[in-house]
Amino acid sequence: MARRGHRTKHRQKRVANAIEQLPWRDVVNPYGPTSVLGDEQLELIIDGALTILETQGMRFLEASSRKQLALAGADVDEEKQMVRFDRNLINEKLALAPDEFGLRARNPAHNLHIGGNHVVFASVGGPAFCSDLEKGRRPGTYDEMCDYLRLVQSLNIVHQEGGGPFEAMDLPAETRHLDLHLAQHRLTDKNCQSYALGGQRSKDSIEMACIALETDRAGLLENPAMLGIINTNSPMQLDIPMTEAVQELAGSGQVCCITPFTLAGSMSPATLAGTLVQQTAEVLAVTCYSQLVRPGAPVMYGSFASNVDMRSGSPALGTPEYTKAAQASGQIARRLGLPFRSSNTTVSNCIDGQAVFESEMSLWGAVMGGANLVNHAAGWLEGGLTASFEKLILDAEMLQMMAEYLRPITVNDDEMALDAIAEVGPGGHHFGTSHTLARYESAFYSPILSNRQNFESWAEAGSIDAGKRAQAILKQLLQEYTQPELDPAIDEALVDYVDRRKADTES
Amino acid sequence: MARRGHRTKHRQKRVANAIEQLPWRDVVNPYGPTSVLGDEQLELIIDGALTILETQGMRFLEASSRKQLALAGADVDEEKQMVRFDRNLINEKLALAPDEFGLRARNPAHNLHIGGNHVVFASVGGPAFCSDLEKGRRPGTYDEMCDYLRLVQSLNIVHQEGGGPFEAMDLPAETRHLDLHLAQHRLTDKNCQSYALGGQRSKDSIEMACIALETDRAGLLENPAMLGIINTNSPMQLDIPMTEAVQELAGSGQVCCITPFTLAGSMSPATLAGTLVQQTAEVLAVTCYSQLVRPGAPVMYGSFASNVDMRSGSPALGTPEYTKAAQASGQIARRLGLPFRSSNTTVSNCIDGQAVFESEMSLWGAVMGGANLVNHAAGWLEGGLTASFEKLILDAEMLQMMAEYLRPITVNDDEMALDAIAEVGPGGHHFGTSHTLARYESAFYSPILSNRQNFESWAEAGSIDAGKRAQAILKQLLQEYTQPELDPAIDEALVDYVDRRKADTES
Repeated sequence: MARRGHRTKHRQKRVANAIEQLPWRDVVNPYGPTSVLGDEQLELIIDGALTILETQGMRFLEASSRKQLALAGADVDEEKQMVRFDRNLINEKLALAPDEFGLRARNPAHNLHIGGNHVVFASVGGPAFCSDLEKGRRPGTYDEMCDYLRLVQSLNIVHQEGGGPFEAMDLPAETRHLDLHLAQHRLTDKNCQSYALGGQRSKDSIEMACIALETDRAGLLENPAMLGIINTNSPMQLDIPMTEAVQELAGSGQVCCITPFTLAGSMSPATLAGTLVQQTAEVLAVTCYSQLVRPGAPVMYGSFASNVDMRSGSPALGTPEYTKAAQASGQIARRLGLPFRSSNTTVSNCIDGQAVFESEMSLWGAVMGGANLVNHAAGWLEGGLTASFEKLILDAEMLQMMAEYLRPITVNDDEMALDAIAEVGPGGHHFGTSHTLARYESAFYSPILSNRQNFESWAEAGSIDAGKRAQAILKQLLQEYTQPELDPAIDEALVDYVDRRKADTES
Repeated sequence: MARRGHRTKHRQKRVANAIEQLPWRDVVNPYGPTSVLGDEQLELIIDGALTILETQGMRFLEASSRKQLALAGADVDEEKQMVRFDRNLINEKLALAPDEFGLRARNPAHNLHIGGNHVVFASVGGPAFCSDLEKGRRPGTYDEMCDYLRLVQSLNIVHQEGGGPFEAMDLPAETRHLDLHLAQHRLTDKNCQSYALGGQRSKDSIEMACIALETDRAGLLENPAMLGIINTNSPMQLDIPMTEAVQELAGSGQVCCITPFTLAGSMSPATLAGTLVQQTAEVLAVTCYSQLVRPGAPVMYGSFASNVDMRSGSPALGTPEYTKAAQASGQIARRLGLPFRSSNTTVSNCIDGQAVFESEMSLWGAVMGGANLVNHAAGWLEGGLTASFEKLILDAEMLQMMAEYLRPITVNDDEMALDAIAEVGPGGHHFGTSHTLARYESAFYSPILSNRQNFESWAEAGSIDAGKRAQAILKQLLQEYTQPELDPAIDEALVDYVDRRKADTES
């Protein structure tokens, strides 16, 4: 475990011109969500979902889940592994799930609130590859993944780490998640998502959270700290690893973020209405099951609804359909009383204009759709196959802009500035007034990477575009990174856990 | 006039694989605007604007306008050229301005409706420079400007030409607008904005519109065809050329799009509330004057409110402040009963991620702010100093995506697809179902330039980014361009007018 703190010392030296960014902030949406569905449409979709669950049902591949569902009154066809749900059963169990809850972080200042009009931005989770402008797109290493985690810790606008930015391909697949969780707890003091693939991995994430937070299962039940993404195998199926993850997470009172993977035209019907019906049916079925595992366990309504490109069958993300589906999903989630999860997506293969406009279409869909968690909010590229270092910085700028957009305009005598308008008079200039000087530092959003030089100055300085500026910023952030304090005893206990589990796996 | 149709012939050859785009469409926003101000805040801002007009007033530099305002009951200080307005006078004249109106185009299928929940996208107008990836940023020529107009004609999502994409620097400044208007009428059949600098230029644009539309002043009064941007000289001043443009446009019943240039911290207070107060005061003062010129003349409430970068004094556009100000301005405009104009802006010097995210922040501010006209919606770069050929294409993609976002989700039995969901069953695939096949062609938005290849295919094809794809697309659009029909007699009359006016100028 020689890695521990190996770069801490030189990183604590702060450079003179530190990267400016917004302070950590609890982001809330005061404007209220956009409604893209009428009330009647909303009810039709929910009714359609309940009808699907009553007439066709959902396939649960894991045997014990079917048993438990049958005991609760669901209609189980063991041969087909199909479970049909009466709508009263669904509604009864749905009512048990909380509409808001907290998520503890190692640093209490970084605790999260999920629900209401709160918006949490999580970093990208799950890609197979990483990329940067210097070395291109490649399988990533553990060291590179640790650098990514350092950036996630450094960027205040990223509220939550997304469960591992990319696979550390230099480590064995079986125990890679242990090294990830160790790095999460050491290199960040933010809330970190679980690597929720299967029961044992989910259990490991929970055990290590207990160690890191100096608590136990009872404490974690009281104050959840772990969120895992539960992807259904759309259409209408829940596989064994994901069922085990529900059992572990819900069983210990941690958060199941239930997210069907419904690309209209392949994993769901080639219509948004059909896709929303199916997505809702899948979320409701798994929600119902989660409340059998533990009544009151926190769950989220996740949407990843988009469409395929009908000419190629390829996924299309950050599309107009994606934006509409996100906002419609938010309406459905609120109607069901569940917090809502959306994402920041793009299928672009590089950090070009497409990557940015698809991300913006996703972000506006999510934020104005009332998302309580914007998953993959920073760093995602290439349909989620790659975590990009520069995209992380570009996204952080976009997220900061959204957060500032969500700060309402103050209207009072001082801000309306009638005296300043009169003082300056026609054709005058406000730059030197006392009203302006009093606001010099904080009047307006100050960007991380946006350039406001005129063309000549910009060209003279080398015509550096946003991607290249992002590259310089991430290098500086890594230079400026300070590893958060971690009690050596906790660190040791985490290392012990990892070593013990690795030994178990080898034996 | 050898230029006439000189490229028409080879352009009418259509290439096999024509650029796919959405058909011409009347874009409406069915979701309703976002409110960033509370009702009380809205009234405070409007009251503040009226108070400014009562106590301080606005400077009108042109003498006859002051005379006319004094006759109407305004309180005029001739020495200071200041005009103070009783709020009753403002409200009385404001009530005369229509809340909706039409704008004729040479092709009736391209007629516009301004107001209500209609959204018109106009191409960039006014820059000093043009740029493309091939030749970089430079003063543009008339030939290059004509190519830009051909692209504006070709892109269906662009509803209106913005009054000249950039200055034709190879033509004399005095008569350049005549060549522009000739090119507008020849190369496009869309509604084209006026080049509204001064009385004579505005008059020329109106006369040439009469010729092109085979109408006269009475016909134009009945059915307006000309919109001019009236920029106040913020703070609180209207200069002589702009006053003359109001006299010509309003006088002939054409549209004055009154747009203060309020960059918070320089031309207005360093607060959004103060900036909105001042902007509203300026719009109201010019609106009042326009209704003295001709009662019932159509006007628009234009906003260009943004802020300066407080460290450098440079303009900052497409900022979070810009987005909020746009949506707040929309609320004010609707409260005043005037159609609302906003813009698509960026200060980026190249077509990078910054150009795109600043454009998206602007577009979401405009569209969800209820803008009836999004000026500079396509092509603007570098704070409006440059019209970019590639940005025109990137913006067209973004505008198409907004237009598709604004198409509401259809919810009915067929679209909810319960049968298809049952047919496919758990773990199946929707790609080949009859429900999907019936929608194969039209189910989802088909992009102009977005790439959905996987990384390997994309890399193998040369790793072409969005900017480079835009370059290829604009070249192809120019190849595919077909000049719209124009009666040779009309063409001749336009040429006669231009020749006559040029001779006047020389003498």
